[in-house]
Amino acid sequence: MNADLISIGDEILIGQVVDTNSVWIAKRLIEIGIDIRQMKSISDNPEQIVESIRQSTSDVIIITGGLGPTNDDLTKKTLTDYFNTELVFDAKVYEHVKTLLVGRGVIVNDLNKEQALLPKDAIILENKSGTASGMWFEKDNQHVISLPGVPFEMKGIITDEVIPRMLDILQLPSIVYKTVMTQGLPESMLAMKIKDWEDNLPNEIKLAYLPRPGIVRLRLTAKGSNKVVLNQLIEEQIEQLSQIIPNQIFGYDDVSIEKVVGDLLKERNLSVSTAESCTGGNISSLITSIAGSSAYYKGSVISYSNEIKESQLNVQATILEDKGAVSKEVVDQMAISVRKNFNTDYSISVSGIAGPDGGTEEKPVGTTWIAVANKEKVISKKFTFGEHRGRNITRASLSALNMLRLLLLNKL
Amino acid sequence: MNADLISIGDEILIGQVVDTNSVWIAKRLIEIGIDIRQMKSISDNPEQIVESIRQSTSDVIIITGGLGPTNDDLTKKTLTDYFNTELVFDAKVYEHVKTLLVGRGVIVNDLNKEQALLPKDAIILENKSGTASGMWFEKDNQHVISLPGVPFEMKGIITDEVIPRMLDILQLPSIVYKTVMTQGLPESMLAMKIKDWEDNLPNEIKLAYLPRPGIVRLRLTAKGSNKVVLNQLIEEQIEQLSQIIPNQIFGYDDVSIEKVVGDLLKERNLSVSTAESCTGGNISSLITSIAGSSAYYKGSVISYSNEIKESQLNVQATILEDKGAVSKEVVDQMAISVRKNFNTDYSISVSGIAGPDGGTEEKPVGTTWIAVANKEKVISKKFTFGEHRGRNITRASLSALNMLRLLLLNKL
Repeated sequence: MNADLISIGDEILIGQVVDTNSVWIAKRLIEIGIDIRQMKSISDNPEQIVESIRQSTSDVIIITGGLGPTNDDLTKKTLTDYFNTELVFDAKVYEHVKTLLVGRGVIVNDLNKEQALLPKDAIILENKSGTASGMWFEKDNQHVISLPGVPFEMKGIITDEVIPRMLDILQLPSIVYKTVMTQGLPESMLAMKIKDWEDNLPNEIKLAYLPRPGIVRLRLTAKGSNKVVLNQLIEEQIEQLSQIIPNQIFGYDDVSIEKVVGDLLKERNLSVSTAESCTGGNISSLITSIAGSSAYYKGSVISYSNEIKESQLNVQATILEDKGAVSKEVVDQMAISVRKNFNTDYSISVSGIAGPDGGTEEKPVGTTWIAVANKEKVISKKFTFGEHRGRNITRASLSALNMLRLLLLNKL
Repeated sequence: MNADLISIGDEILIGQVVDTNSVWIAKRLIEIGIDIRQMKSISDNPEQIVESIRQSTSDVIIITGGLGPTNDDLTKKTLTDYFNTELVFDAKVYEHVKTLLVGRGVIVNDLNKEQALLPKDAIILENKSGTASGMWFEKDNQHVISLPGVPFEMKGIITDEVIPRMLDILQLPSIVYKTVMTQGLPESMLAMKIKDWEDNLPNEIKLAYLPRPGIVRLRLTAKGSNKVVLNQLIEEQIEQLSQIIPNQIFGYDDVSIEKVVGDLLKERNLSVSTAESCTGGNISSLITSIAGSSAYYKGSVISYSNEIKESQLNVQATILEDKGAVSKEVVDQMAISVRKNFNTDYSISVSGIAGPDGGTEEKPVGTTWIAVANKEKVISKKFTFGEHRGRNITRASLSALNMLRLLLLNKL
């Protein structure tokens, strides 16, 4: 079973947007055993859309983009003509469009109303987050699926509508995937550490390293005929892996570390605050990206300047002078003060040199101190990250969250 | 004049690598007036390569990838066969390959030697940074250019060999483009507001809407024969547009609003602090993503809980009870307190219901109050965003930064 992915829209062809949609879709389809034959980006132009479908010999074609409310979006009309059907008014979709827009304080106009005109002979795929519905056409055993190009809308429809329907109606092989989420070892060091385990993996299992700043995901793929057997094989291997890197594994299957830490705090009815310097609010931002974080997160002081470290976090001017803002003494005090002032069970503090400027020979760009505290203790650790500002901020934030996780589990 | 871009290699099709090469090439070609008709990623498979060339009706085809020294790279052989020519030994290229590999301490093997075998009827494009030469075939007025997939090698050949040759032998038009960055109006409302202007754009100018949460980019592309005239045409239109949406335009050509605000503060030697509730540190994070932000940013209080709003930002308990945390009174006090406590010229404060929970009939999810303050005044405004937590946070953050920008420019 194979698929072609076609993305429509000039933003990609003019080099303004990278086609990350296709990459995301490719991953989802491969997970359920559909190979990608080709990916294509074309203009929002009826001839090219039709030509691309005509030329495709794949079982599935997924088209993204060209479904917005503006005049230049022609995909729906083109597909409706191509599949010899007609546009009919869908009252249910119109109600959804109205509800969504009114909720956003937008006045519903004729362009929006047109979004409820949908092809009669297609299965309409509900778009919970947007006004452009997805459409699933079928002809001569070829499935043509058209989706909006806005990433979160497309992702919602793929997850809620397309994948379940594919699993339901297409003949797909058995594949079991599991992703092990690790924090604390860069890819090359991790690879050295787990080499023996990796070399002894059973033949059915393939391993892929998927690194991103501060996190390495280990993806295990088992292919065969029996899902139960494959699942068991994978679980056995993960059990072995957990013995080798017990502190680095924070979860599975793309869970975020902020979610894991949040769940631990919530379960135990504990609270946390943060005092951030070089991470500039990124840790708070990660923590509060989780819905329901107000149950355990009270707040933060972002003390970007030394003045604020002194006035808001009781860091003594003499310590800042003698030891520097990036020091054990400063992060310890920051963690202690914010925990006390914000009256929380736990706290995190970070101070470092994110770069590109501010490095010295003794403390180069990337030098970062992180502390975590509870009522019994303060534990601090020095890290040396790299030269890239954005990645230093990310790595410091993830390392800090992992330290809090380990402290919560009494592993620090 | 148009072009197809074809990238070869399974890494893209399995969703592990994003095709950034094509985006980079697209920008370079568009700059010299070549439109991209389509971009395509295919497998390293002779049939698919030939099929892609056969199906293409474009004037230029640029193929990247599949030219390495390993056995599974079949592009060179495939193209040589397709263009009915033969591989001949190129002594000059062989010398280059040897020099390069010896310099890297690599022993030259047979596979490397094969890289000096090149098609007789193609123009060979020198690859200064690598061992795989580029090739330029021409047949029936169609130009087929094959380049290695390694980004810096590909970029070197495009810049040094392909573009100069294109300017030399192809008939190319003049092209000018400019992107207008807007904040504050969703795509459909913006489209309604600038409809007359859009309808009256001169024929030479095309407009594209490029929306993302909280920001809509308007891209103007002018094509013609005279670059000076086109530049002037675009500037005239942007001047008109600025009259229609004076407060929404915050910059041009993909600048971020945090950079614009940061530059304004730095130029005027002013400082800023923030007091964030629902945005949870995201505004601080955006501000500090800019290198050098310590020149104007002192810090923040993230007051996620009411307790912290009271203890750290002097918000009175009675106000929180009577008006609720999401109210004008609360954000006003937050902005005043953080500006005073952190001793900054300006401040931003935000309190809202990010969702998914916490909404009421009177204040649904998405309801957000934002205030900006300086020593003379506090200005606050109520927004109603949508239902999606992440996007509410993004929209609130960008709206807050735009309010600060307008206050700094005395436009609020």
